[in-house]
Amino acid sequence: MNSFTFYNPTQLVFGKDSIEKLPQMIAQFTQGKKIMLTYGGGSIKKSGLYDRIMTLLSDFEVTEFGGIEPNPRLSTVTKAVEVVKEKGIDFILAVGGGSVIDGTKLISAASKLDNDPWDIVTRKVTPEEGVPFGTILTISATGSEMNSGSVITNWETNEKLGWGSPLVFPKFSLLNPEILYTLPKNQTVNGIVDSMSHLLEQYFNEADNSAIGDAMIAGVMKEIMKAGEVALKEPENYEARETLMLGATVALNGFMRMGYNGDWATHNIEHAVSAVHDIAHGAGLAILFPAWMTYVSDKSPERFAKFAEDVFDVDSSLSQQEKVDAGINGIRDYWTSIGAPAHLSDFEITEDDFETFADKTLFNGPFGNFYQLDKEAVMAIYQLAK
Amino acid sequence: MNSFTFYNPTQLVFGKDSIEKLPQMIAQFTQGKKIMLTYGGGSIKKSGLYDRIMTLLSDFEVTEFGGIEPNPRLSTVTKAVEVVKEKGIDFILAVGGGSVIDGTKLISAASKLDNDPWDIVTRKVTPEEGVPFGTILTISATGSEMNSGSVITNWETNEKLGWGSPLVFPKFSLLNPEILYTLPKNQTVNGIVDSMSHLLEQYFNEADNSAIGDAMIAGVMKEIMKAGEVALKEPENYEARETLMLGATVALNGFMRMGYNGDWATHNIEHAVSAVHDIAHGAGLAILFPAWMTYVSDKSPERFAKFAEDVFDVDSSLSQQEKVDAGINGIRDYWTSIGAPAHLSDFEITEDDFETFADKTLFNGPFGNFYQLDKEAVMAIYQLAK
Repeated sequence: MNSFTFYNPTQLVFGKDSIEKLPQMIAQFTQGKKIMLTYGGGSIKKSGLYDRIMTLLSDFEVTEFGGIEPNPRLSTVTKAVEVVKEKGIDFILAVGGGSVIDGTKLISAASKLDNDPWDIVTRKVTPEEGVPFGTILTISATGSEMNSGSVITNWETNEKLGWGSPLVFPKFSLLNPEILYTLPKNQTVNGIVDSMSHLLEQYFNEADNSAIGDAMIAGVMKEIMKAGEVALKEPENYEARETLMLGATVALNGFMRMGYNGDWATHNIEHAVSAVHDIAHGAGLAILFPAWMTYVSDKSPERFAKFAEDVFDVDSSLSQQEKVDAGINGIRDYWTSIGAPAHLSDFEITEDDFETFADKTLFNGPFGNFYQLDKEAVMAIYQLAK
Repeated sequence: MNSFTFYNPTQLVFGKDSIEKLPQMIAQFTQGKKIMLTYGGGSIKKSGLYDRIMTLLSDFEVTEFGGIEPNPRLSTVTKAVEVVKEKGIDFILAVGGGSVIDGTKLISAASKLDNDPWDIVTRKVTPEEGVPFGTILTISATGSEMNSGSVITNWETNEKLGWGSPLVFPKFSLLNPEILYTLPKNQTVNGIVDSMSHLLEQYFNEADNSAIGDAMIAGVMKEIMKAGEVALKEPENYEARETLMLGATVALNGFMRMGYNGDWATHNIEHAVSAVHDIAHGAGLAILFPAWMTYVSDKSPERFAKFAEDVFDVDSSLSQQEKVDAGINGIRDYWTSIGAPAHLSDFEITEDDFETFADKTLFNGPFGNFYQLDKEAVMAIYQLAK
């Protein structure tokens, strides 16, 4: 393992009764009464969640800021920051999935600065405080509810970039697995792919010893896979939903990656695609991760063989190559079985785009902590995914 | 799972260079210069760690408080509290294992109150603030370095009681696996038993669904068992030491028990013994856990069969009873193989003591969240351990 510091102060409140705790949770962080409610396309109004929240917030002065889109946009964040400053907002409540929360993280940090919010994302300025915020999670996938990372898309420059700061851990996140009952099937599928991808990114790391992490990653991944099958057949299966919801949170809240840096090349490769085509992050990962695995496994077969043993319990008497194949096919076949896409061509993305994508991934030079990719490698991976 | 709130604000700093970060870590929590250094029997002076720390603290005014004993005593804590109040201590640095840290937690909380420290342990008073403290861990076992619990022994009343408060999370804990190289062998063994016991207590819980927890517990336990064998043969094997050290921390920092209450009967049964006989906690657990498992497995064989599958990968075609036996024997045989004791008689504890112990365990009535024990059950468990 490498030297590391683990720190995660988010209060995770989980269960059927979690949302009712909203007023007492906010009271821990502000005496003020001016709340901004951030959300996405308005599904919270149809589901009744909006009304429930407004009742719980009846003692507060609530300013609504809806319309934060999937792959949250800089332009939207910039508008929200103006409102926060103008109204003197004391606390922000993000109600939504990873996009709403990621957007809210940048709203929080940028509202205390005079800079363009993009300066935070591009590290031109380091925020030193943020407007406190909490979340109510409605889509389980990205883990943003309990980490300090955020991904923002700048449509003016076609850039999709990740950034993070210890300031933007949510103060609290309220998770009720029942909220997931009415998710459209493709969002459940994308959430499963996304949380498994986070585990994969961390499993393939550069450290000499990641025994504790390997064990937790493999264990959580197997449970997500089992629960995913159940939840897709029985959307109102509470136990399956709670395993998926908690699984997605722990997949990217730092528990799994103590002592090593995950690879994260595939996320970069995917972001280059979804910065140009408005494709769901989970769908992009389902297409690109098996391609990355296929390409990189040739270079580091030992690790891929261990992966197959850890996650798919393959017979230890198999040859190394058989194990490698079993691990990659295990992931690809599972994702196909739950209805995730497998080819870039499913989204009318052709070879003509690959060079543009590849150049975008390489804006900071070669990348990938487990296996470093150059342009030739990235092009080969897009080819494997076409 | 049950509804739960997870919150753990301790900064965990891990690695060969962790201790060098001490001054900057303290500076996050106080501008004051008055530090109390708490430690145990003085092994830190022999090892050179004391000198290293004093050099790092050269800008501070350090008050030493050594002599916190294994199974830390109320009388010692009470003396330390007087010193903290008299000197106006700004920050406490605990250097030691679980006993020093547990004692320091009570010093921290009691120093801001006029009550007897025992009133906190017995819940007569709820602390509302504490003197901030951090830790440098020298024995890896209890997990106290990253949780808010503490166990204190009152030799006047022969009581050994656990208590906790969110106030007494260490602000930071600095963990360098190299510190474990020179541990006496029996302390390494007790640490392995203690951390595995924490995992066992949590695996056997009352919840309907603990899929994520089961997976993490089983995975971490297997890695501790593997690393334990290596570290006992090669005390200076860094990778084995880091797995044991991180494993013991995550075994009781809340990661594993999201959504359920562990059983914790065996800890109560053990505390009753070590409140009277000055036996190491890990040694007591090695003797008593297999006895508890044997007694309770008759009542809940399904769970014990799953345990054997999860931790010992037993063949799924075995009968339920064969699986149950394989799980219990797996734990007992492993502990015996690493040199842990297996019988109360090894410590000259006889049947004559059992009723006294049993009465002590039942001071609050029947106990155990997975399986509730009454006096007859507790007596039977001591018989199985004799």
